[in-house]
Amino acid sequence: MQTGRATVLVEPNRIETWNVPIVDPEPGGALVRLVVGGVCGSDVHLLSGEAGVMPFPIILGHEGIGRIEKLGGIDKDYAGVPVKPGDLVYWSPIAACHRCYSCNVLDETPCDNSRFFEDAKKPNWGSYADFAWLPNGLAFFKLPDGSDPLAVAALGCALPTVLRGFDRCGPVRVGETVVVQGAGPVGLSAVLVAAQAGARDVIVVDGVDQRLDVARSLGATATISLKDNPEERRRKIYDLTGPAGPTLVVEAAGVLPAFPEGVDLTGIHGRYIILGLWGAIGTQPISPRDMTTKNLTIAGATFPKPKHYYLAMHLAAQLQEKVPLAGLVSHRFAIEDAPKALEAVRKGQVVKAVIDPELAPA
Amino acid sequence: MQTGRATVLVEPNRIETWNVPIVDPEPGGALVRLVVGGVCGSDVHLLSGEAGVMPFPIILGHEGIGRIEKLGGIDKDYAGVPVKPGDLVYWSPIAACHRCYSCNVLDETPCDNSRFFEDAKKPNWGSYADFAWLPNGLAFFKLPDGSDPLAVAALGCALPTVLRGFDRCGPVRVGETVVVQGAGPVGLSAVLVAAQAGARDVIVVDGVDQRLDVARSLGATATISLKDNPEERRRKIYDLTGPAGPTLVVEAAGVLPAFPEGVDLTGIHGRYIILGLWGAIGTQPISPRDMTTKNLTIAGATFPKPKHYYLAMHLAAQLQEKVPLAGLVSHRFAIEDAPKALEAVRKGQVVKAVIDPELAPA
Amino acid sequence: MQTGRATVLVEPNRIETWNVPIVDPEPGGALVRLVVGGVCGSDVHLLSGEAGVMPFPIILGHEGIGRIEKLGGIDKDYAGVPVKPGDLVYWSPIAACHRCYSCNVLDETPCDNSRFFEDAKKPNWGSYADFAWLPNGLAFFKLPDGSDPLAVAALGCALPTVLRGFDRCGPVRVGETVVVQGAGPVGLSAVLVAAQAGARDVIVVDGVDQRLDVARSLGATATISLKDNPEERRRKIYDLTGPAGPTLVVEAAGVLPAFPEGVDLTGIHGRYIILGLWGAIGTQPISPRDMTTKNLTIAGATFPKPKHYYLAMHLAAQLQEKVPLAGLVSHRFAIEDAPKALEAVRKGQVVKAVIDPELAPA
Amino acid sequence: MQTGRATVLVEPNRIETWNVPIVDPEPGGALVRLVVGGVCGSDVHLLSGEAGVMPFPIILGHEGIGRIEKLGGIDKDYAGVPVKPGDLVYWSPIAACHRCYSCNVLDETPCDNSRFFEDAKKPNWGSYADFAWLPNGLAFFKLPDGSDPLAVAALGCALPTVLRGFDRCGPVRVGETVVVQGAGPVGLSAVLVAAQAGARDVIVVDGVDQRLDVARSLGATATISLKDNPEERRRKIYDLTGPAGPTLVVEAAGVLPAFPEGVDLTGIHGRYIILGLWGAIGTQPISPRDMTTKNLTIAGATFPKPKHYYLAMHLAAQLQEKVPLAGLVSHRFAIEDAPKALEAVRKGQVVKAVIDPELAPA
Repeated sequence: MQTGRATVLVEPNRIETWNVPIVDPEPGGALVRLVVGGVCGSDVHLLSGEAGVMPFPIILGHEGIGRIEKLGGIDKDYAGVPVKPGDLVYWSPIAACHRCYSCNVLDETPCDNSRFFEDAKKPNWGSYADFAWLPNGLAFFKLPDGSDPLAVAALGCALPTVLRGFDRCGPVRVGETVVVQGAGPVGLSAVLVAAQAGARDVIVVDGVDQRLDVARSLGATATISLKDNPEERRRKIYDLTGPAGPTLVVEAAGVLPAFPEGVDLTGIHGRYIILGLWGAIGTQPISPRDMTTKNLTIAGATFPKPKHYYLAMHLAAQLQEKVPLAGLVSHRFAIEDAPKALEAVRKGQVVKAVIDPELAPA
Repeated sequence: MQTGRATVLVEPNRIETWNVPIVDPEPGGALVRLVVGGVCGSDVHLLSGEAGVMPFPIILGHEGIGRIEKLGGIDKDYAGVPVKPGDLVYWSPIAACHRCYSCNVLDETPCDNSRFFEDAKKPNWGSYADFAWLPNGLAFFKLPDGSDPLAVAALGCALPTVLRGFDRCGPVRVGETVVVQGAGPVGLSAVLVAAQAGARDVIVVDGVDQRLDVARSLGATATISLKDNPEERRRKIYDLTGPAGPTLVVEAAGVLPAFPEGVDLTGIHGRYIILGLWGAIGTQPISPRDMTTKNLTIAGATFPKPKHYYLAMHLAAQLQEKVPLAGLVSHRFAIEDAPKALEAVRKGQVVKAVIDPELAPA
Repeated sequence: MQTGRATVLVEPNRIETWNVPIVDPEPGGALVRLVVGGVCGSDVHLLSGEAGVMPFPIILGHEGIGRIEKLGGIDKDYAGVPVKPGDLVYWSPIAACHRCYSCNVLDETPCDNSRFFEDAKKPNWGSYADFAWLPNGLAFFKLPDGSDPLAVAALGCALPTVLRGFDRCGPVRVGETVVVQGAGPVGLSAVLVAAQAGARDVIVVDGVDQRLDVARSLGATATISLKDNPEERRRKIYDLTGPAGPTLVVEAAGVLPAFPEGVDLTGIHGRYIILGLWGAIGTQPISPRDMTTKNLTIAGATFPKPKHYYLAMHLAAQLQEKVPLAGLVSHRFAIEDAPKALEAVRKGQVVKAVIDPELAPA
Repeated sequence: MQTGRATVLVEPNRIETWNVPIVDPEPGGALVRLVVGGVCGSDVHLLSGEAGVMPFPIILGHEGIGRIEKLGGIDKDYAGVPVKPGDLVYWSPIAACHRCYSCNVLDETPCDNSRFFEDAKKPNWGSYADFAWLPNGLAFFKLPDGSDPLAVAALGCALPTVLRGFDRCGPVRVGETVVVQGAGPVGLSAVLVAAQAGARDVIVVDGVDQRLDVARSLGATATISLKDNPEERRRKIYDLTGPAGPTLVVEAAGVLPAFPEGVDLTGIHGRYIILGLWGAIGTQPISPRDMTTKNLTIAGATFPKPKHYYLAMHLAAQLQEKVPLAGLVSHRFAIEDAPKALEAVRKGQVVKAVIDPELAPA
């Protein structure tokens, strides 16, 4: 029996590298040889156990790009595009059940029966691995010809998350004045999309200078350091936008104090959008009266649909020559070095880290 | 010089009845003999001084219906409908400047130069009075033939406020499951509009049984008493809506604890809309993470446009035979008895009180 | 081997009643004993061959309500509601593939791989039959407790089609002035939904007095006969709506001359929505300049999603006591009398005809 | 009495240069010394008499940028920005009445009482002149500091028209595939906005190679010549977009055959938007059935609001360094040479022509 390596989270804070069987695809599914597996901040929360009960042991990794090894009797991807072994594909890591209230009545993600992870002892689509076994129903899409897998991987699941957020909460319009709180992957994705969508101002707030530099490379028109105190930050933002203030503020910092600050920053008749999953747990004081007198909208969104993975992949491919996306991948790790990768992400030492199965352990 | 009576707020907590000159309309304006002047909850806040600094003395009243006495060289209302002396008209009490950022760039109310009140010594459109002098630019609309002024007055400025809220935050759709917190004028208006818009459930929460009865008469499908504790309220609501919860919750209670309760009540992918102006001052703890994991939208809106007064007037006229609107006017007061009217509203003793200039003091 | 009867279209214009095997459901599917099978106008087009090439022989019928006979290892419907044998269910007759561009990128119906019909020799979900075999993936929903199957069947697939149309093209808003061209099932469904959504005027145009009477029973506020010429029709409509004209016109006549008339009827800044599938083939002259000078929107929509079947079923159940829906079913036919049913529909002799498997042939 | 020159259309096809009095601004208005007056294609239609009855004699020109000479007692522009003599301003050429159905109920342009032109013998805001007298109520906006008046003038009223069109008919979203029919000012504006909004493809169709070159300079990603026949054009477009076709087609050719071709080009679930005012008069055959089976939306829009002039001015200022806008002004003419300017526009010899009051007659 042939096997491949995989990073298994056996229980919280315990990672092992296993050799797992390489299993033929089921009908409708695909077997993919991984080219790159993205390391997401949420993997750090999984490792620590914060993310709640999981069906341990699990194979880590929900951001994957790879080459088709075998197809389960199909010849098209989930957008109807012809595929064959050797093609590069990208996938949405959660298969919808198409049988629940969210799928069929709300027409929304997340599916009520979302299966985020599979037992590491079973065929598995975790992407810290040599192979991903994509079950029937897990949407994968062929990369456009000429795509750089690293450009698609660079912003990870943050880019589909941001596209889904703007899809749900309304797009960025030409001429808008946008503030983005936080320059991690979600914040950087918001910067990229807002800049591409023609925002007049894209102002980013973060505490790490290097991340602010990256934000500028993706289209931020101004950056503000957390070294400034909140009053200074507000003043600098309003100096840039004019007295009406930002038309759109995006919360991508994931820390509690950002929430009331963002509500306060948002201009009259403006929108405050909260994106991403692993925000800090807790509450913050908000004034309902401010919401009416300023005619504010606050909206949250998470869990992209397959369409947002498709759109993110195409957007990255479209921009890979114009915007230094692939260069965001600052660190590569071997499968066996997954603990180091997670530690580097936890410490904020990387812009983007990925697992590269071809790499030998350091 | 002819004079008419008017209720003047000379300073906080000091009301006098003055005889003020009856002034010919300016070009483009109109002089109107009042038929009914609505007493709004916000008038109570004006009286007490809570509403902030005002250009005292002012004439009270921003909800007025009357008959045209004289026209300032015009022959149409602000919707282009021909008008003549004797016609019943309804007006939006704030004239837009059409020269500010909100008017011309945001295309939104409130106007940055909103003039809510005029010095009582000047020609004045306050509606606790025999006559209202409508300046050029203050939008008034002819009541449809056969309209009952009391039906139009019954929900006061709350009905245009609610129509504006749904205009801005998205309409109620056929089949929605709606919860309304509070059965004062804003809450009752939300009940009326949600029921007319085809909501499947219109569930109202209030502490006063009589108000819940009124809510039922306007289309509420279920009522829940504040005598139930929050957990019981939530359970009863979810028993009615099913496990997905309400698709829309409307905050019309104007008290702080309603805010986090409303966020919590809102179903996944649902909307929470906060309507009205005189909400309680202060903050409440909200979880930003709940907003993303539930894909929630919270939106506030206030200050109707003239179109919402027009639409409210037509909606009331359209429904006056089907829904007991005029009957909501539970108390009428003479101009001289304005203090009693305000006291009755403050104590929550009325469904709707109005000033009737034809009435002799009690 | 047990068998049940089914109406088979062997080739255009040739119908036979076959005894077909009753097959156990596949995993994820269900076997349903039909209670009522709706006869849709499109079935007449299938019979005549106008609807194009089909995989003959096919079992007719795409509108079905029945009782679960057996379940294929599942215990919930497609909205996550528990189901068991004996429960009444309603279904969307087309299973989405969830693997095509429309399903996964557009997030829209119709699916690129829509399978409308199945070979009559295979397990089959055609609803002119004793049993329908619902394959895995064909969304079915449990009727709310107390629902009258005839109320749900009364408007057939027209009601989900109309709900989908307003979902895609924007809902009817409270106070709108609506004109509906045609009072067949699509037109009647539009009347019902517009009336429920709080339209001020719902004006219906049709040539058959009886259909106009039915439209009134569903909420039409005025009716106009095709005996009036187009100028008279326009004048009568504008007398009702006022000079701004209808805010929304719905094309449900399915005849070519209705199209330019509808564009012309639509008021400035108004919407013209074309709903349904089997409209007349051909073109009509439209002025692009009128579209800009009147700021018009014309939108077409067809092919409901499963959610629209769910919503239609709930709307019918919610209204069955208030609106005489079940009474729209004017004619019932035995399975063997399907040719008579189709002939009656073709001649416009019925409001709604259904196949009732319990009925003996006439 | 001081006078300034102005180009007067005395009657169709008869232009004269008059010396007209320079009149002090009325209260609320402004007197502006023109820097540039755009020559719009619609001026050619006015000259020929096609545009219908006008209050001849009129001063031509509705696209103007100039410096404030005197202010009528005001110190802010119509966005609330402080202004003083010498400041550059841009204006929306039609004053809304704020008293009609369109202004107050529809909240839409055009105003029912739009006054496009004023008698040349009266104070006048026509912009082929030394001075424009802006009446009270005519919205003008201060150019952002550093703006190049030619960059703002380059696309004339076409840019606000296009911004209004996308405002009304829905914005261009990141990743859309857009086709623009026609590369005149409206088409070029659509190209600019679609490119700025992040469209993946911006494909322009026109018959003049030079205009296609200009389209590329504004962001078109591909151009197609009218020398190709319609089948070839369609094939080339679908080769670029893929089989789903364009998600958005913009009609900016203003010729009748473009209309059915545009409907046909639009991909399933796509939008076809018709922008601009002076489209060809007449009708074209359209299939209502295609609208339903393709789920198409066709929408027309014209007559920008003041906000769209404000947004257009800011967009031009924001882009003037990145996009060669000012360079689009290919021809300048003296006031006395207005007939030559109009002739050049009529013959399609210019990208953009303007009247420059400082220029001596050729």
